[in-house]
Amino acid sequence: MTESYPYTQRVAALRDEMIKANLDAYLLPTSDAFQSEYLPPESRHMEWLCGFSGENGMVVVTRDKAATFVDGRFTVQISKQAPADIFQYCHINDYPPARWICETLGADCRVGIDGYLHSAGWVDQARATLAEDGIELIDHQDNLVNRIWKDRPDGSGQPIILLETAGQSSIDKRLQIAEILKQRRCDALLITHPECSNWLLNIRGRDIPCTPVVMSYALLWQDGAVDFFVDTSKLPEGFGYHVGEGVNVYGLEQVEDVLTGLSGKTVHLDRSETPSRLLQRVVESGASLKEGKDPCLLAKARKNPVELEGFRRAHIRDGIAMCQFLAWLESEIAAGNAHDEATLADKVEALREDQALYIEPSFETISSFGPNAAMCHYNHKYNTPRAMGLDGVYLLDSGGQYLDGTTDVTRTIKVGEVTEEFKKMCTLVLKGHIGLASCRFPAKTTGLQLDMSARLPLWMEGYDYDHGTGHGVGHCLGVHEFPGRFSNRVSSEPLEAGMVITIEPGYYRADQWGVRHENQYEVVAVDCGGDREMLGLRHMTFVPFDTRLLDRSLLTESEINWLNDYHQQVYQNMTDALNDQNRFWLKQACQAI
Amino acid sequence: MTESYPYTQRVAALRDEMIKANLDAYLLPTSDAFQSEYLPPESRHMEWLCGFSGENGMVVVTRDKAATFVDGRFTVQISKQAPADIFQYCHINDYPPARWICETLGADCRVGIDGYLHSAGWVDQARATLAEDGIELIDHQDNLVNRIWKDRPDGSGQPIILLETAGQSSIDKRLQIAEILKQRRCDALLITHPECSNWLLNIRGRDIPCTPVVMSYALLWQDGAVDFFVDTSKLPEGFGYHVGEGVNVYGLEQVEDVLTGLSGKTVHLDRSETPSRLLQRVVESGASLKEGKDPCLLAKARKNPVELEGFRRAHIRDGIAMCQFLAWLESEIAAGNAHDEATLADKVEALREDQALYIEPSFETISSFGPNAAMCHYNHKYNTPRAMGLDGVYLLDSGGQYLDGTTDVTRTIKVGEVTEEFKKMCTLVLKGHIGLASCRFPAKTTGLQLDMSARLPLWMEGYDYDHGTGHGVGHCLGVHEFPGRFSNRVSSEPLEAGMVITIEPGYYRADQWGVRHENQYEVVAVDCGGDREMLGLRHMTFVPFDTRLLDRSLLTESEINWLNDYHQQVYQNMTDALNDQNRFWLKQACQAI
Repeated sequence: MTESYPYTQRVAALRDEMIKANLDAYLLPTSDAFQSEYLPPESRHMEWLCGFSGENGMVVVTRDKAATFVDGRFTVQISKQAPADIFQYCHINDYPPARWICETLGADCRVGIDGYLHSAGWVDQARATLAEDGIELIDHQDNLVNRIWKDRPDGSGQPIILLETAGQSSIDKRLQIAEILKQRRCDALLITHPECSNWLLNIRGRDIPCTPVVMSYALLWQDGAVDFFVDTSKLPEGFGYHVGEGVNVYGLEQVEDVLTGLSGKTVHLDRSETPSRLLQRVVESGASLKEGKDPCLLAKARKNPVELEGFRRAHIRDGIAMCQFLAWLESEIAAGNAHDEATLADKVEALREDQALYIEPSFETISSFGPNAAMCHYNHKYNTPRAMGLDGVYLLDSGGQYLDGTTDVTRTIKVGEVTEEFKKMCTLVLKGHIGLASCRFPAKTTGLQLDMSARLPLWMEGYDYDHGTGHGVGHCLGVHEFPGRFSNRVSSEPLEAGMVITIEPGYYRADQWGVRHENQYEVVAVDCGGDREMLGLRHMTFVPFDTRLLDRSLLTESEINWLNDYHQQVYQNMTDALNDQNRFWLKQACQAI
Repeated sequence: MTESYPYTQRVAALRDEMIKANLDAYLLPTSDAFQSEYLPPESRHMEWLCGFSGENGMVVVTRDKAATFVDGRFTVQISKQAPADIFQYCHINDYPPARWICETLGADCRVGIDGYLHSAGWVDQARATLAEDGIELIDHQDNLVNRIWKDRPDGSGQPIILLETAGQSSIDKRLQIAEILKQRRCDALLITHPECSNWLLNIRGRDIPCTPVVMSYALLWQDGAVDFFVDTSKLPEGFGYHVGEGVNVYGLEQVEDVLTGLSGKTVHLDRSETPSRLLQRVVESGASLKEGKDPCLLAKARKNPVELEGFRRAHIRDGIAMCQFLAWLESEIAAGNAHDEATLADKVEALREDQALYIEPSFETISSFGPNAAMCHYNHKYNTPRAMGLDGVYLLDSGGQYLDGTTDVTRTIKVGEVTEEFKKMCTLVLKGHIGLASCRFPAKTTGLQLDMSARLPLWMEGYDYDHGTGHGVGHCLGVHEFPGRFSNRVSSEPLEAGMVITIEPGYYRADQWGVRHENQYEVVAVDCGGDREMLGLRHMTFVPFDTRLLDRSLLTESEINWLNDYHQQVYQNMTDALNDQNRFWLKQACQAI
C-alpha cells in the first residue's frame, strides 16, 4: 500500500484553492504546455499530486472525491504509486474522466483545467460531453497546483544549443515552409511543438529528458520571418547570427499577447496539437483559422543528406557502445558476476556517454530479464530490478541522442538456457524483421501497407504482437517522430526517401519471456530494373543479433544470406574501433550461420 | 467520325423540353434509379442522348452547347461513340461537370436533373459548387429524356425468382437487421440498393444484365416488417408464402408517398447511396435521419453455410465449362482454326449455359489477345475483335451467375510463342497470387493490410499494377460486392469468415500483352496452433493455370507445392465430369511441374 502522506495534504490544499476559485473539481493530465512525450521535473503536476509518474494519465479531484485515469500499460504502476484510499482507479478508455465527472457531479458544477496542458481538440470534446450534463469546463488562468507546490523545481535554465549539423540553413527552411503557407493562403503558422520550432531554427536545448529541445513556441510568417517565444535567458551568444535574419525573440509569457493581436490574419494551426489556451487567444483575436497538420512535421521527417550522414555516423559510434556492452555482458556472465536490470541499463548508458557528440538517452531504457521482457513497456525503475541468473534471455531496448543523430536499438540476448520453443519464436520474429527490411515498394506506399510483412511469419503459426512494427525517428529530436511508421492501425501518410524508421517486431509469452529485434532504417530510392520508381530500406544500425537464439532450420536461404551479409557489415564497420578482447567477441558474434 | 444523326435531333428535342421546363441546362449520368453497375436498356438515357455506352459518365446539354464527361478508362470509347461536333469531351476528374457548367453558364441559371439518378451525397456537393456561382440545381420531377425518347424500351417484365438456396429465411434476416436498428435507435431502414432488398427477401430477378435482381426499394421496420416497392406485375405465385409474414407490397411509384408519411420516425439511410429524390421526401416528412452504411451490406457479405456450399457447387460446374473451353481452344489451335475475341467469348458463355442453375454472365467477358490484354477494361464489343494467330497469349476474364453462386475467373493462356520476359512477368504475377492465397491473418485484418503480399514479387523487380487485387463477390448477386476486398486504397472494413473474395493480381505491358491470374476464395477460420484465432483463404475456383507460361526457376519450393497441390485438386474435382478428350487435356494441364 502506498503511503498516503504527503498526498492527503496536497489534495486538501488543492481543494482550498478550488474553493477560492469557485471550482467544484480540478482536472490535471500528465502533460506539459508543449505536449512533450517526456516531462521535465517542473511539469510533473500529476505526479506531485498523486504519485503517478507514467506517461499517460489524468487525475480529477472534486470537493470530496478523487480519481486517477490511466490505460492498460500503467495499471500495475498506478496501483503502486497512487494511494488507493485517496484516488479511485479508473481505466481511461473504459471509464474516461468526463464520464466519471458527469456521474460524480451534478448540473451547474464547474470543472477547472489549465488550458495550456490540453489540446484544443481535447477540450472541445470534453466540454461538449460535460455540457450535456450541464457541467461547465473552465480554463482557469492560473494552474492551481502551481500555487501550492512550494518546492516546484525551476526549469532547466540550460542554454540553447546552436546545431551545426542540420544541413540546411534556418532561412532556407523558413522560406520552404513559407511557400506552403502561400499555397494554402495563410498569413502565419502557429508552431506549438518544440521539435518543429527547434528544427526550423536549427537549435536544440536541454529542457526535458530524452529529447534535446528548448521549450518554445513560434509564429512563422508568409515572408519567412519568425516570432520566437522562449525563456530569453537561454539565448546563447551568436544566436542571431546562427538563425539568420527575421527572427524576433519574445519571452514565453508574451505569446498570448502576440496571438491576441492577429486580427484579420489567417493562421494555420492544428487543433489536435495546439494548447487550448493558445487557440482561444487566436480565436479571440478575430483571426481566421486554417486547420491542418503543421507542415514542418513532414519537412523535418524528410532528412537531408547532411542529416542522413550524421545519422549514419552516430550509428557507428552507438554500435561501438552496444558492442562494448554486449562483449562486457558476455564476459561478466562467464565470470559469474550477477548484475541486475538497473546496473545493466546504467552500464550501457555509461558506454554511450563515452562516445563523441552524445547528449543523453533517447528514451527510458528497457532493461529486462525473462518475464519482465514480456511486458513491452517495462521499466525497472518502478520495480525491484530483476537479477541475472534466473532467466535464459535478456531484452535491451535503448538508444542515444547525439548531436548528429538519434538511435534506437533492441537486442534479445542469451544469458542462460533457452527452450526450442523460445528459439522458434525468436526466429519467427527475426524472419518478420528481415521480411520487412527486404521490401521494395513504389512511391506512395504507406507503413500500414507494409506492416504485414513483419507479422506474416508469426501469423502463419498463429501468433502476433500488439504493438506497432516501427516508428519514425527525429534527427537529434524525438525518438518517436510523425509521420513515418509501420503500423497495423490506419495511417495514410506515405513513406518517402529520407525518412528514418525503426523495424521492431516482437513476441511476448506472458510471465515467461519476450523477444524483440529492432534496427533503424533509412528509406532510400532503389533501382530494381523494372518500369516503376521504387523505394527500399537501408539499415543504419550496426549491432550483431544473437544467432545462438535462432533455429537455423526455420530460415530460408535468402534470410540466411541477409543475416550473414548484415553481420559481415557489422564486423567491417566495428572491428577497428574495438579493443582486442571486444574484437574477439565481435568476430564470434558476427560469424556466418 | 461518329455519325451525328440521330443525336442532333435528340439534343434539339431535349432543348425544346428544357425551354418548356424553364431550364438553362440538363445533366444526365450513366446511372439508373437503383445505382446499378449494369444498366437495363430502358435506363440507358445517356447512351440514347449521345451514344456513349460505357459505365461511368455524364452529359450536360445547355441551350447552345453540350459536353460529355468520362474517366480515363473510357476516353477511347467516347471518341468513337459520341459525335465530337455536338459534344465537347471533358475528363470527369480534371474538368468535372459542375466546373464546366459554372464556366459555361452565368448566375441565376437553372440546371435540371432527375433526382432519382443521383445520390443525395452527389447532389449536395454539386448544388453547393453551382451555388457559389449563383447557379441553381433543380430536381425536375419528370425525366426530360423520357418525354422525347419515343421508342424507349419497357422494363424486363420478367417475374421475380423465389430463391431456394439462401440458407436463411427472410424473416430471420429481417429480425437480424431489425435488431441492429433497435441498437441504433432507428424506427426504419431505407434500402435503396436492389441487391440488399433482394437478399433480405430471398428473391432475385432478371431486370438488368449480369446481376440477377428485381429493381425495388424497401423500408424495413424495427419489428421486422417490410414495405416493399416493386413492379407488382412481377410478383409470382407463392411470393407471400416464400417471403413470410410482414411484407407489404407497394408499386414502385408509391415509394415517394410512403416516405412522405414518415413524420416523427428515425430513418436509417446512406446519403452516398440513396437517390436524392427519396432522401428529399424523407426530409420533407420531418423524419429524423440516422446516416450510415446499410447494415444489410455486411450481413449479406458474411455468407452462411448453405450459400457457401452453393458457391462451391457452382464453381465445380463453372470449372467444368472453363475446362471444356480450354480443351476446345487447344484443339482449335492445333487444328489451325482461327477464332476472334468475340467468338471465343460467345463460346465460353455457351458452355456455361449448358451448366445447371446458370442464369447469365456475371459481368461483360474480357476476351483479349496480345496488346488488347494490356487494357484492363478491354471490351471487344467496342472494337474490331482481334483474331487468333497474331499473339502469344490470350487473356480470358469471365464468370457466371448461377442460382447457387456467382463466379469470376481469369486465365492467361498460351496461344502462340512467348518470350522469356513474358514468362518472367507471368510467373511473378502468379507468385503474388500464391503469396496472398497462402496468407493466414488475425481477425480484424483488412484487405488493405494484405494487399501487398500479392504485389511484393512484382515490387521486388520494380513492377506493379494499377488496379485492386481483389473484390468481394455476392451470392447470386453483384460480382463486385462491398466490403470484402484486397486493395491498396484505404479500406477499413475487416475481412470476416464467410466472405467470398477474388485474388487477381496482374501485369500489363502496354501495346504488347497482359497477364492476370484470378481465383475466387472464401475466408475461413484456420487452426495454426498458435495463441491467436486466425483466418485464411480457401480457393473455390477449379481451373488449371497455364503452366507452359511459367518460369519454374523463379518459383520457391513452397510455391511449386502450392501449384501442384492446386492442380491435383482441380484434376480430382473435374475429371469425372469431362469426356475422354477433355480428360486427356485436363491430365496434361494438371501435371505437376
